[in-house]
Amino acid sequence: AAFPGLRVRALPADLGCDQGLRLVAEAGRGLREAGDPQRLLLINNAGSLGNISKTFSDFSEPDEVNSYLNLNVTSALCLTASVLKAFPAQPGFSRLVVNISSLCALKPFKSWSLYCTGKAARDMMFQVLAAEEPDVRVLNYAPGPLDTSMQEEARSLSADPEVRQAFIHLKESGQLIDCDVSARKLLDLLVANAFESGAHVDFYDP
Amino acid sequence: AAFPGLRVRALPADLGCDQGLRLVAEAGRGLREAGDPQRLLLINNAGSLGNISKTFSDFSEPDEVNSYLNLNVTSALCLTASVLKAFPAQPGFSRLVVNISSLCALKPFKSWSLYCTGKAARDMMFQVLAAEEPDVRVLNYAPGPLDTSMQEEARSLSADPEVRQAFIHLKESGQLIDCDVSARKLLDLLVANAFESGAHVDFYDP
Repeated sequence: AAFPGLRVRALPADLGCDQGLRLVAEAGRGLREAGDPQRLLLINNAGSLGNISKTFSDFSEPDEVNSYLNLNVTSALCLTASVLKAFPAQPGFSRLVVNISSLCALKPFKSWSLYCTGKAARDMMFQVLAAEEPDVRVLNYAPGPLDTSMQEEARSLSADPEVRQAFIHLKESGQLIDCDVSARKLLDLLVANAFESGAHVDFYDP
Repeated sequence: AAFPGLRVRALPADLGCDQGLRLVAEAGRGLREAGDPQRLLLINNAGSLGNISKTFSDFSEPDEVNSYLNLNVTSALCLTASVLKAFPAQPGFSRLVVNISSLCALKPFKSWSLYCTGKAARDMMFQVLAAEEPDVRVLNYAPGPLDTSMQEEARSLSADPEVRQAFIHLKESGQLIDCDVSARKLLDLLVANAFESGAHVDFYDP
């Protein structure tokens, strides 16, 4: 009732497999044909933390690493590519792609090899998209340390004691950010539309 | 004859599969048991360019992307992890890991989505290793534009005409670097041993 005219459709899909990606792309095409959209906003938020109880030297088995990269890198690329194809450029139609990034895309965290690697890969991938497609607006948004179950894992499972302690401190000193607050900041950035396409913007950036 | 005492052993192994990775790790263990090494130098040079005739929006099929990441990211992680395990830290034994990086790890190149993504991922991954293991020296070395068959592909196959032209210009103006010259620069860096562990150092850096 607060948002008249808004239609919400939830579509559960496993982005780690072909079938899930196809499902989403098809839904996109369906939406497109059903209406005459003026704007596409794709937020790539799906992701996983990876096993943070291991350090770099523990990752000697390719299967675990490949499966992490499949969900966290490949699916973001293939999904975005599929959606952009389903919604090609046309006059008066604006396209905006957000990658939910992290400080980990820029700065290494001990015992977070997979997460840091995946986030750095994604940031660069979306920078390439920004360079290639001037008519698609691209934003790498680092939402800050959110008060979610991921932070709970970070506090309890990080192999490195310093990193673990740093996350415990964030929680205890009330520095974790409410998801709604960070999401609002993202929306403000999108509405103001002043970012350089492909830029990495952090919640804490002025 | 020029290098008395030097033993060279070539070991062909497909780093894109479990078996190849295991082959190399076993050879490492074999070398270790055969002698009493004082130094480990691992240079992660294996890699591929990926399909540069496609742009970001063409990568809607996960198989091609996963297979690229497997060879260019996963194998470098799992191989390095396996070798570090085969050669654990001990007094008087120095360990040095080099990642052959690229300007593409820092800067997006149009139509080089996979290559840029993989190189950015690798740089970050090896930064995590450097942070985790202070006794392993880690260098991300960008060798500059080398006069190799990869540059030939870059000149002829890059989907983006500007990028293609830039590579043609590098070749025609004699700016491509001889592999021996860049390898010498890498060796000089390793011998001087003054880099910060995990740093990205470019051939052109002063």
